[in-house]
Amino acid sequence: MNYAIIRNLIGKIFVLIAFLLLLPLATAIINSEGWLNIISFIIPIVLLLGIGLLFNIKKAEDKTLLAKEGFVIVALSWILMSLFGCLPFVISGQIPNFVDAFFETTSGFTTTGASILSNVSGHMVEELAKSMQLWRSFTHWIGGMGVLVFILAIIPESDSGSAVHILRAESPGPQVGKLVSKMKVSSRILYIIYIALTLAEFLFLWLGPDKEMTAFSSLIYALGTAGTGGFGINTASMGYYGAYSQYVVAIFMFIFGVNFNMFYFLLIKNLKDIRKNEEIRWYFIIVFASVLIIFFNILSQYNSVEHAFRDALFQTTSIMSTTGYVTADMNAWPVLSKCVIMLLMLFGACAGSTAGGFKVSRIIILIKSGIAKIKKMVSPRKVFAVRMNGKALDEETISGVHGYMIVYFIIFAVCTLLVSIDGIGDIVSNITASISCISNVGPYLSGATGSLDGTFMNYSYFSKIIFSLEMIAGRLELFPMLILLTPSTWKKRSF
Amino acid sequence: MNYAIIRNLIGKIFVLIAFLLLLPLATAIINSEGWLNIISFIIPIVLLLGIGLLFNIKKAEDKTLLAKEGFVIVALSWILMSLFGCLPFVISGQIPNFVDAFFETTSGFTTTGASILSNVSGHMVEELAKSMQLWRSFTHWIGGMGVLVFILAIIPESDSGSAVHILRAESPGPQVGKLVSKMKVSSRILYIIYIALTLAEFLFLWLGPDKEMTAFSSLIYALGTAGTGGFGINTASMGYYGAYSQYVVAIFMFIFGVNFNMFYFLLIKNLKDIRKNEEIRWYFIIVFASVLIIFFNILSQYNSVEHAFRDALFQTTSIMSTTGYVTADMNAWPVLSKCVIMLLMLFGACAGSTAGGFKVSRIIILIKSGIAKIKKMVSPRKVFAVRMNGKALDEETISGVHGYMIVYFIIFAVCTLLVSIDGIGDIVSNITASISCISNVGPYLSGATGSLDGTFMNYSYFSKIIFSLEMIAGRLELFPMLILLTPSTWKKRSF
Repeated sequence: MNYAIIRNLIGKIFVLIAFLLLLPLATAIINSEGWLNIISFIIPIVLLLGIGLLFNIKKAEDKTLLAKEGFVIVALSWILMSLFGCLPFVISGQIPNFVDAFFETTSGFTTTGASILSNVSGHMVEELAKSMQLWRSFTHWIGGMGVLVFILAIIPESDSGSAVHILRAESPGPQVGKLVSKMKVSSRILYIIYIALTLAEFLFLWLGPDKEMTAFSSLIYALGTAGTGGFGINTASMGYYGAYSQYVVAIFMFIFGVNFNMFYFLLIKNLKDIRKNEEIRWYFIIVFASVLIIFFNILSQYNSVEHAFRDALFQTTSIMSTTGYVTADMNAWPVLSKCVIMLLMLFGACAGSTAGGFKVSRIIILIKSGIAKIKKMVSPRKVFAVRMNGKALDEETISGVHGYMIVYFIIFAVCTLLVSIDGIGDIVSNITASISCISNVGPYLSGATGSLDGTFMNYSYFSKIIFSLEMIAGRLELFPMLILLTPSTWKKRSF
Repeated sequence: MNYAIIRNLIGKIFVLIAFLLLLPLATAIINSEGWLNIISFIIPIVLLLGIGLLFNIKKAEDKTLLAKEGFVIVALSWILMSLFGCLPFVISGQIPNFVDAFFETTSGFTTTGASILSNVSGHMVEELAKSMQLWRSFTHWIGGMGVLVFILAIIPESDSGSAVHILRAESPGPQVGKLVSKMKVSSRILYIIYIALTLAEFLFLWLGPDKEMTAFSSLIYALGTAGTGGFGINTASMGYYGAYSQYVVAIFMFIFGVNFNMFYFLLIKNLKDIRKNEEIRWYFIIVFASVLIIFFNILSQYNSVEHAFRDALFQTTSIMSTTGYVTADMNAWPVLSKCVIMLLMLFGACAGSTAGGFKVSRIIILIKSGIAKIKKMVSPRKVFAVRMNGKALDEETISGVHGYMIVYFIIFAVCTLLVSIDGIGDIVSNITASISCISNVGPYLSGATGSLDGTFMNYSYFSKIIFSLEMIAGRLELFPMLILLTPSTWKKRSF
């Protein structure tokens, strides 16, 4: 273990988070929310800055980084970010319990959107101060693209040899895309696209005809959509707003589920690489087919065709992009629509987007390798290659996707058993909440009420911690968390 | 396609089923159930004998069999068996609807134990004639070991070169075990063990102190246990009988979940191969751990320690062996116990037993290949072999298990969507019923009542047919059914 470089990088993250906390701090000051809220941001800023600088006094002499160290840095950073990021909620007393605040912040950074706030638990999101609401939604935006990738994008001296391991550990999807030869440049391009799209959504919402969409609300929902998170400022979620705003958010949820490389290709007018991309094609097909099935399935329940279409579109893009905003009571929907929604929850959107879940590209590889297996049984002497984007995939990529699926189910099963120990939730809630956390979706299916629910307030502290770790595992695509917990990771460094 | 040999073999199966139908026919005659019931058995016997002999007039000249033809024979046989096997129920009017009777018979042959009979639907199993009850349970016993394996065991001239493809297609588990060099001999040994164990259970039940366990009841439950099916003759399932009978059935459910090769090893005193077998070790560990967790979890709900232990033991062995008998209202159990039961439902018992589900050996290979994947990420330059029973597994076996898992989830997802079209069941029922059918367990979790339910009466005919095909796919371990439906299977024969 190269402890020095781990310390250095985590220190840099701390400084970054300290800077990012200045935005909600400014909000607290501008809104004159009082000293308590202001101090609630100043204390973690001072702590993070202090530790961050302390961790960077002594620079690592050996700048090389092993793959396992990349995983450890990423996993540790995300846990520590959530531990420090929840301090404003705790100190201000707005979410007084530390475990609750930790859960909420983890849910934010991992872009899950699961919450301990609800009208049932007595803690409503409307009651939070504006600065706290902003910080809560800001964590989605920060977590969406990943903090370590950001560090690599802005810090000049970072070693590009070690960068690849971190990028691989923090970025979602089975293959790390190479946009341009220099990884640093490609990270910067992605961030610029991310910021531009968020800004575009903000403007569309703010400048639209919806009077309820103030500048603040527009910012909150733009941040929540960009990170495909799902935190809002209304218990009724996006159902609180008008049709125009719902369409804008639906379209942007779809957009943020697209592999960001596609936007870059669009910018440089490289349409060939977009057309060749199977994931984006299937992403379109799945969304289109789901909206169609749900629309015709729910149509008889609606008075207006437009409303049925809007609800079908919004719920589909929300669940498939693992955002988790809702505008319809899906409990009243026919069982076929519910089934489609459950399936989309597992799928997730494209690799290289801010969405969680399995990712469409993995689903394609899984299905194609399943079909190859069947063909192989029919004609045992022929060779059936699994092709993606016109190229045959190597055995390692395919077995990597298989391994991902296995590890996904193992973590899911173990976590579901662990959160059942407290005996609080029913079996349907526990299973779907566990899927929701590992896929970073947010809402789960409550066995008691039968409807899609988003509040985790009633679970025990132990279960909330398990759910939090499951969310981080899901966001980092499982392996960093497991490698952090593997004993052999901590053995003496050897090649 | 070698159509001649397919026709020959299916004809032999028809003759076999005709002979097996003599047992319920005799029951109908002895019990003087009247002409209708007697004719209900005679008509299919005549039909099956006629077609069976017709199919064997012209012998195939080319006796070789391709792998795909083995799969096609097995898949076709099982569908045809259920189509003809349901005739007694339809003709006698005891289950007048053809789709219902087909579902019931498929559920029998595939040893699922799902039923359209229940006290809710108005059709109770108690109302069936004795001959029909016997035929229904007898299908479990026939399906448990597989009919084609039986054909190979008894017919002298069958070619052992083609036998391997059929054995592979019909026998459960990732690897086909070789007991003795001659496959025919090994099939015969397995059948003798199967018959002996069934007889032993029958005697234990009949000669026990339980007055309700008549010779007929003992036979019914011995047949249902041997096939790990789950059909009984009481709506209250095994809860109708006393503690002694419940222990006997629980122990035999456990025994019939063991790889039958182990009994052969035991007979020839080859203890080394039993000790080396990892699957059997893990089967013991999983059952032991599950009984322990459930016992301590439910203890406070029971007045008697013995009763809590008995219920924990019975439900664990019943679900893990995919039998599906129940003696406890699991709905009242704490959520942790329910979670354990759900997990066991997926696991299934050992390969080479009569149980359905994933099989313990596949679970072991999956978990081990997942762990190898994590280790590989920590130390990318090392090689981590997946070992089973002391030997390193080759890539093909591992990727075969991965392929099985993928195909399992694809079939499960597609079937769940299809049975949701009728809009009848709720989402929880549909998902768990689909798992239950593909794993050949039987009962499912009803979303409406929250309890484990076994009746499929209310589903549409379309859904019942889908469930039936899913049960056959599950029993034959997925591939034969898919290969039957793959267009390239039906192309001209080529090597």
